[in-house]
Amino acid sequence: MKYPTLYFKNNTLFILDQTKLPQGIKFIPCTKYQQVRDAIMKMKIRGAPAIGVASAYGVALGALCSLTKNIFELKKEINKIAEEFIKTRPTAVNIKWAVEKMIDGLRIADCGLGIDDLKKILVTEAKKIHKEDIETNKKIGKSGADLISDGDVILTHCNAGSLATGGWGTALGVLFAAAKQGKKITVFVDETRPYLQGARLTCFELKNMKIFHYLICDNMAGYFIKKGEINKVITGADRIVKNGDAANKIGTYTLAVLAKENKIPFYIAAPLSSFDKNIPSGDGITIEERNKNEVLYINKKLIASYNTFVKNPAFDITPSKYITAIITEKGIIKKPYTKNIAEILKN
Amino acid sequence: MKYPTLYFKNNTLFILDQTKLPQGIKFIPCTKYQQVRDAIMKMKIRGAPAIGVASAYGVALGALCSLTKNIFELKKEINKIAEEFIKTRPTAVNIKWAVEKMIDGLRIADCGLGIDDLKKILVTEAKKIHKEDIETNKKIGKSGADLISDGDVILTHCNAGSLATGGWGTALGVLFAAAKQGKKITVFVDETRPYLQGARLTCFELKNMKIFHYLICDNMAGYFIKKGEINKVITGADRIVKNGDAANKIGTYTLAVLAKENKIPFYIAAPLSSFDKNIPSGDGITIEERNKNEVLYINKKLIASYNTFVKNPAFDITPSKYITAIITEKGIIKKPYTKNIAEILKN
Repeated sequence: MKYPTLYFKNNTLFILDQTKLPQGIKFIPCTKYQQVRDAIMKMKIRGAPAIGVASAYGVALGALCSLTKNIFELKKEINKIAEEFIKTRPTAVNIKWAVEKMIDGLRIADCGLGIDDLKKILVTEAKKIHKEDIETNKKIGKSGADLISDGDVILTHCNAGSLATGGWGTALGVLFAAAKQGKKITVFVDETRPYLQGARLTCFELKNMKIFHYLICDNMAGYFIKKGEINKVITGADRIVKNGDAANKIGTYTLAVLAKENKIPFYIAAPLSSFDKNIPSGDGITIEERNKNEVLYINKKLIASYNTFVKNPAFDITPSKYITAIITEKGIIKKPYTKNIAEILKN
Repeated sequence: MKYPTLYFKNNTLFILDQTKLPQGIKFIPCTKYQQVRDAIMKMKIRGAPAIGVASAYGVALGALCSLTKNIFELKKEINKIAEEFIKTRPTAVNIKWAVEKMIDGLRIADCGLGIDDLKKILVTEAKKIHKEDIETNKKIGKSGADLISDGDVILTHCNAGSLATGGWGTALGVLFAAAKQGKKITVFVDETRPYLQGARLTCFELKNMKIFHYLICDNMAGYFIKKGEINKVITGADRIVKNGDAANKIGTYTLAVLAKENKIPFYIAAPLSSFDKNIPSGDGITIEERNKNEVLYINKKLIASYNTFVKNPAFDITPSKYITAIITEKGIIKKPYTKNIAEILKN
C-alpha cells in the first residue's frame, strides 16, 4: 500500500488522517490513548478492523502513560480505557475483540513480571494484532479472488480497503488480489454519503493500485445494476452475527436488495474478528446514530436550512438471505449460515 | 406558495434561481430566450413541468425579440427556438409538449393577424400553459390525497413540488393537499445527490408549508423502509411511456425496488403532459448524462481526485410493474397500465 493506515514507532502511534484524504496526506502522532480515542470518534480513522487495531495500540499507549507502580492498579486503568474504546463506535465488534485480546495477552503474560515488562508486552500484543490483521486480510483476498472473474464489473460501497484495516483490506483486498492474479476488473464506487468514504478513500486506493474505476452517487447503483453493467457487489462488514445477518455502512442493505432483484451475487468480505457469537440475529445489533451535521454540512457548507431535522444512522443490517457468500480468512462461508458460521468459529 | 417558481411581468420572465436555494432568494430576469434556455441547462430552474412552462415563456420571449416583419420568417425562428429548448434536457417530455402547444397556438390564431398580434398571442399562450399547469397540479393533489392517510410516513425523492412545476407541485402537491385536509403526515426527504434537490428544495418547501419532515441521505431510505418507519413512497416523473414505465430522477428505481421488497406502495404523481404516447416502453427513453463535475464537486469543493472517472446519469427508469398507481389530473391510473393509460390519454 502506498500509505499505511497507521504505524507505531518510538512509543507513538501515527494515524493517517482519513478526513484529509485524498487531497492531503497527514499523519496524527498519538502518544496518549485519548488522542487515539478521539481520532476514532471523529472518524479520522474508521473501518471496523482499523479501529480494532487502533484501539489495541490505544490501550498500549494508555499503559505506557500510566504513572502507577501497582500492577493491580494498572490493570484497572487498562480495563477502564478498554471500556472507553468500546464506547466510541457501538456497531463494529472489532474494537471489543481487539481490546479483549489485549487484556487476555496481559493475563497470559502476567506471571510475576514487573510493570515495565507488562507495558512492553502490551505494545508487542498490539503490534501482533496489527500484523495478524494484515495477514488475515491477505488470506481473505486469496479466498475471495476465486469468486472474481476476468472482465467482472464490481460495485463496492464505502471503504473496505487498506484504510479500513491494519493494511490491504477486506472487500477491496479481494479485488486487489484478483487484479494481482491478472484479472481485468472494473470497479464502480458508491460515493457513500454522508462521509463520502467511497469518493475520498476507495477511489484513492483503487487509483494507487491502478484498478480502473468509476465514482457514482449512491442512488445510481440501481441504475447500473438494472442495466446489467455491474455483475457483482462486494462490501465489508462491521459485525456479522450468528445467523449471518451483517451490519455494514448505511446503504449496504439497499445494494443487497438490488442485487437480489437483478439476480447478481452480493458478497461480504470480513475477518472472523468481525463475527459476534453473542447475538443471534441482526435485530440485536446497535445501530450508531451520528451527528446531524454530518448530513447537513458538506465541506463545512450547509446543504439545507440549518434547523432541518435529520436522521443519520451510520449503518444498516443486511439480512443473511440476501448474502450470496461471506469471505473470511478461513475460506468462503455459504448458506446455511447459522450452521456454517458456528462451524468456522469453532475451529 | 411562498415564492413563485417563475412569473412573467413587463415582457420579462423572472425565474427563481433554484441553485441559490434555500440560502438565497434571487430571481433571474430574462428578456431573451437564450437566458431561459441557459437557466434550464444550468438547472437554475428544473423539474419536468417547470421547464415545460419556462420553455413556453422562452418561445414567447424569442418571438418578442424577433426583428423580422415577415410572419413566415417569425414562424421559422420560433421553430428553431423550440428545437433549442427541446435539446436542453432530453429526458423530460414536457418541454416538447409545451413548445408544441405554443406552435399549435400560433397556427390556430394565424388567420390574417399582424406580427405584433401573433407575438401577443404567444405570450398569452405561455401564460395559459402556466396557469393550466398550476390547475393541473391542484387536481393531481386532490386525486392523490385520497391515497394518503392520517399518520402516514411518506418518503419522497428529489423535488416534485411547487419549484418543479408552474406552482403547487405533483408528488409534493399530493402531500400538500393531504395536509390541507387535516391529515397529519411525516415526510422523509432523500437529499438526492448529486444536485441535492431534496435537501435544498423539498425541505425548503415542506418547511414553508409547515409539514414535519426529516432529511436523509439517499442510501438511508432502505434502512427506514425495512424498519417499517416509512409506509409509502411518492415521487414525480419526467416521462411516462405507453406501458407505464416512468423516467424520474436517478435513484427512483431503487426506491421502487425497496418498496416492492418491503411491501409498501410506490406512487408516481405526474400531469398528462409528462406522458409520451410515442414510446412503447422505458427502453426507448433517452437518459441524460450530465457533467462529471456535478458529482465531483459539492459547493465548489472536490470530494475525490479531480481526474477520477465519473458516471452521472440524471435519471433512471422505473418499470411499471413496481408502480402501485400513477396519480394524474384526470384521476388515478392503476394496472394494467397499457390499457388504462391509452384510455385516459384518449379522453
